[in-house]
Amino acid sequence: MIKTIAIMTSGGDSSGMNPAVRGVVRGALYNNLKVYGIYRGYEGLIDGDIKELTSRDVGGIINRGGTVLYSARSKKFRTEEGQKQAYENIKKYKIDALVVVGGDGSLTGLNLFIEKTGIVGMGLPGTIDNDLYGTDYTIGFDTAVNVAMDAIDKIRDTATSHERLFLVEVMGRHAGYIATYCALAGGAEEVLIPETETHIEALCQKLEEGKKHGKKSSIVVVAEGDDAGGAVETSKKIAGKTDWDVRVSLLGHMQRGGSPTAFERINASRLGVGAIEGLIAGEKNVMVGIVNDQIVYTPLKEAISKKKPINEHYLKTSDILSSI
Amino acid sequence: MIKTIAIMTSGGDSSGMNPAVRGVVRGALYNNLKVYGIYRGYEGLIDGDIKELTSRDVGGIINRGGTVLYSARSKKFRTEEGQKQAYENIKKYKIDALVVVGGDGSLTGLNLFIEKTGIVGMGLPGTIDNDLYGTDYTIGFDTAVNVAMDAIDKIRDTATSHERLFLVEVMGRHAGYIATYCALAGGAEEVLIPETETHIEALCQKLEEGKKHGKKSSIVVVAEGDDAGGAVETSKKIAGKTDWDVRVSLLGHMQRGGSPTAFERINASRLGVGAIEGLIAGEKNVMVGIVNDQIVYTPLKEAISKKKPINEHYLKTSDILSSI
Amino acid sequence: MIKTIAIMTSGGDSSGMNPAVRGVVRGALYNNLKVYGIYRGYEGLIDGDIKELTSRDVGGIINRGGTVLYSARSKKFRTEEGQKQAYENIKKYKIDALVVVGGDGSLTGLNLFIEKTGIVGMGLPGTIDNDLYGTDYTIGFDTAVNVAMDAIDKIRDTATSHERLFLVEVMGRHAGYIATYCALAGGAEEVLIPETETHIEALCQKLEEGKKHGKKSSIVVVAEGDDAGGAVETSKKIAGKTDWDVRVSLLGHMQRGGSPTAFERINASRLGVGAIEGLIAGEKNVMVGIVNDQIVYTPLKEAISKKKPINEHYLKTSDILSSI
Amino acid sequence: MIKTIAIMTSGGDSSGMNPAVRGVVRGALYNNLKVYGIYRGYEGLIDGDIKELTSRDVGGIINRGGTVLYSARSKKFRTEEGQKQAYENIKKYKIDALVVVGGDGSLTGLNLFIEKTGIVGMGLPGTIDNDLYGTDYTIGFDTAVNVAMDAIDKIRDTATSHERLFLVEVMGRHAGYIATYCALAGGAEEVLIPETETHIEALCQKLEEGKKHGKKSSIVVVAEGDDAGGAVETSKKIAGKTDWDVRVSLLGHMQRGGSPTAFERINASRLGVGAIEGLIAGEKNVMVGIVNDQIVYTPLKEAISKKKPINEHYLKTSDILSSI
Repeated sequence: MIKTIAIMTSGGDSSGMNPAVRGVVRGALYNNLKVYGIYRGYEGLIDGDIKELTSRDVGGIINRGGTVLYSARSKKFRTEEGQKQAYENIKKYKIDALVVVGGDGSLTGLNLFIEKTGIVGMGLPGTIDNDLYGTDYTIGFDTAVNVAMDAIDKIRDTATSHERLFLVEVMGRHAGYIATYCALAGGAEEVLIPETETHIEALCQKLEEGKKHGKKSSIVVVAEGDDAGGAVETSKKIAGKTDWDVRVSLLGHMQRGGSPTAFERINASRLGVGAIEGLIAGEKNVMVGIVNDQIVYTPLKEAISKKKPINEHYLKTSDILSSI
Repeated sequence: MIKTIAIMTSGGDSSGMNPAVRGVVRGALYNNLKVYGIYRGYEGLIDGDIKELTSRDVGGIINRGGTVLYSARSKKFRTEEGQKQAYENIKKYKIDALVVVGGDGSLTGLNLFIEKTGIVGMGLPGTIDNDLYGTDYTIGFDTAVNVAMDAIDKIRDTATSHERLFLVEVMGRHAGYIATYCALAGGAEEVLIPETETHIEALCQKLEEGKKHGKKSSIVVVAEGDDAGGAVETSKKIAGKTDWDVRVSLLGHMQRGGSPTAFERINASRLGVGAIEGLIAGEKNVMVGIVNDQIVYTPLKEAISKKKPINEHYLKTSDILSSI
Repeated sequence: MIKTIAIMTSGGDSSGMNPAVRGVVRGALYNNLKVYGIYRGYEGLIDGDIKELTSRDVGGIINRGGTVLYSARSKKFRTEEGQKQAYENIKKYKIDALVVVGGDGSLTGLNLFIEKTGIVGMGLPGTIDNDLYGTDYTIGFDTAVNVAMDAIDKIRDTATSHERLFLVEVMGRHAGYIATYCALAGGAEEVLIPETETHIEALCQKLEEGKKHGKKSSIVVVAEGDDAGGAVETSKKIAGKTDWDVRVSLLGHMQRGGSPTAFERINASRLGVGAIEGLIAGEKNVMVGIVNDQIVYTPLKEAISKKKPINEHYLKTSDILSSI
Repeated sequence: MIKTIAIMTSGGDSSGMNPAVRGVVRGALYNNLKVYGIYRGYEGLIDGDIKELTSRDVGGIINRGGTVLYSARSKKFRTEEGQKQAYENIKKYKIDALVVVGGDGSLTGLNLFIEKTGIVGMGLPGTIDNDLYGTDYTIGFDTAVNVAMDAIDKIRDTATSHERLFLVEVMGRHAGYIATYCALAGGAEEVLIPETETHIEALCQKLEEGKKHGKKSSIVVVAEGDDAGGAVETSKKIAGKTDWDVRVSLLGHMQRGGSPTAFERINASRLGVGAIEGLIAGEKNVMVGIVNDQIVYTPLKEAISKKKPINEHYLKTSDILSSI
């Protein structure tokens, strides 16, 4: 039976990690479990940067971006020696279950660690990219989309004033979720994502048609991992092929920060509590997710390997709304 | 076959009506339908306040609160004479389908009008209250929750500075959705909603325990339709029963306004396009909704009469997170 | 020579108190002074709720509403006994100068305490009301105005959708600064403030004229201390005297919270540093302020007694812009 | 006597141009002047893209970024032919005074045009850069600073989570106002501006000391026109010289957009009304400004040629607050 858990945030941070940590900690305390916080992800587990947490330690953090447990990408954890030290700290603190909030890489690390050591693991989907199977929305996604959309709204102001075309690059090396959602929300004229092939000629033609239809500005949202090669590369490729005056904007790391949205805080809080509910019910080596508004548990292996495609209706809607 | 549609927004307005109108208009034009905009809801249909809309008419509105078609609650439409005039305008403009964005009352009106006149009707769920069956999220709900949450965040600042208890009243005469969601997102200590009975003694006891646990402030979110009677009434009932210094805040009409969130714009855009897709596919006298991320059509009668209960996991999570 | 200072925040809290505290603390440490933080204002000074502060204690607070030192209104400090205890703690901690961030009441208290005890005092203007002589902008004012304006923007959305008149009540029991500024920024049709007499008939006539000129909505900003008696009272007085459909909105305590604006953080930071610069230069029993972008020191007595009238050009501009 | 005026926005757009236009238009109508709007700056004056404006044309724009009159940089206006055509339109529409909202370049153009043609000109300081002599704050500056600060707040979240150093580039080719103000407001560790020489070694040393003092993150704000060469160049120059993990973020064009802040709207509204007040009082060939909260008029020649240095107290405060 689980008496003690430890929680860490790992990999690229995302807004919503704090309410997730709060959910895990308070969910555990509510069920009379002891809770340790591990600082700086696997680095802290190796270094013993571990502290017991109370309910007050996670008070007043639900509305803050970043993560109070800090995060890191750990090279040491990829070594035998690092994993050995990590496991010794697991034993030292009598940790029955290791809870990790993180993305693809962090959950892959958790899965490997579990397989080697036999400890109980529970993952929470913490990434702005929304590319984990087993949950509809990852922690950080809704906030990142709103942050990017707010920036696009501002860029639209100046684009319209000067009748310009802006290529706006958003995060997403392998997944076009952020790009697709914020393009739809920002009323973008086109969106370029890794999941689909980009045709420069067709893009330019569509943009020219928009100009003919009287559009005063155009926004193309470009996922950084698009095959055309990001916004700067794309701007070079379309140079001279449209009448638009072109500018580039790279939104960058601000997409990871900011106070989490309402949806984010709710999603993260429920996932946090759901992680504890799962552990108590005997779930192990799974990632907790919310699918169709219900808490579900997916084996870590599936969560990190299975593909979650973008709902076609989003792309279709985006296309219809920008074609006219 | 449908060649001409007309669209109106009706009843209490909500943020997201503009992207919904944009979705309907562009979705229709994309499918070569003629589109009329009816201003001021059923009032405008009766008065002939009707104008053909182009794609440019709905340009630059995706990020604006309110509704460019204006809204109203129509007394005239409840009379025989009013309905007769409305129908004459339907014939005059050769409107094949009437699309209405509105809540409970507006869709009830649409249903009655359809039954009397035999015209084709399509409803979109437009209300901040989220209390329509047949869709997971109504248009205006996510924005209202974020607006209320932002206010709660600000109130928390001053509550904590002065170690006070605030009763924050949010909209919701018959439904506790806004209250439940923004309480969870705002980390509120308690939430009072119409769906559950409010026990003043138990409430005071919980608040006192929080104080003993070291809480520096407390927020109780009160839906205006709670059986304890709104925030002002509740403050009178708890007077003298806790050690907290109590204040009341009424959030009011700002919950209906503001630039729509990303989720709102996407939801509203998809519903707008989905309404047209439905009409083309032969759907009639239904409300378009999104359930589990898929477009669905629910007979108007069901949408306005069936109950959509609040997911228990939200209430449970809220309770766990505020008990510790 | 001053070696040790203590800082408190007192009275009604306001956004910007945190960057002010940060400014004082870091300004002092930079000049090799020892700094104590006094918690909960004069209450904490009496109770000995005092802690030495380091630079890290004020790290990460520049963007947070509220005050990390908490605030309070102290009844005990009005008694001989309370003041005696307070003074004993001043001696116990060897505090050479007492720095107080607060409004009218708090600075009056400081002045009395100084006169009785002979210690060195330094005030910072901390109030959302902007009604202190000796500074152009008090700490909390710019943020309060922006918060109120954002709410008015949202209310305008729904007001326009339904062609309504809203009476929006903002803080200001004795001063119309917040009302005047956010009315001008929100494009309000009229503003009612304590400084001028309110004529209900003239108000109604202006609102009617606006309707005739084609205005789709009207906003009247009402300072809570206006002689007409706040928004609820005013709504009763205008009932039946205009064709407008009238609603009331009370903005309440959220005006005290929220992340400080850029201007606020800069103003507060400079005042904090300026307070220390003043103490080092031998200033005492003054309030630090910024007038015409320059740091100035005003005797506490003047700061709390002299009147700072509202610049007439604001009222004139507001009147011109809403008359057409 | 002036009976007819025309207004345009010109050059790089900035948030606040809309309330400025509203102020000019309503101020003119209030004084019974006829008002023409010229679209797309000098381009529109040459092309005759001119339309009479009513009060309703500028309704509902006070809160919108961009400019409803559009803007442009005009090559044609630099030619004799262009200026001749422009002047013909001035005569055709019987324009007695030309009001231009714009920056350095646009006001220089206005001044030349005035000298050649003898018409009456009035400039409003419209630029995010705040580098015009004759006004404390240009139109667009306060909003740009708040937008940049909000981005820095978000970047701080992720910087702290990962204990990183970010170089954040803001606009300002020749002036460090935006950089200085948002660095102070964002609590940045250092700011690099064109007005001062950048020493890479000293910068690195300061950043290293911060790390030793326990800082969990560092932000350096870089004006694009700094002599070290912008954020990307600076990152190359400091590579290997600190222990910090370094990232770069370019804020870009979003600084020009967004809903104007309260201060912005008030400043712009007063300048708009002040421009008309000046014209009526006989001012000509001047730029209207606000200095020490009073409306003043400065000859265009001075406004575009005289230097307005950054208040030293800002730099000093920034330095003190980041040194500890």
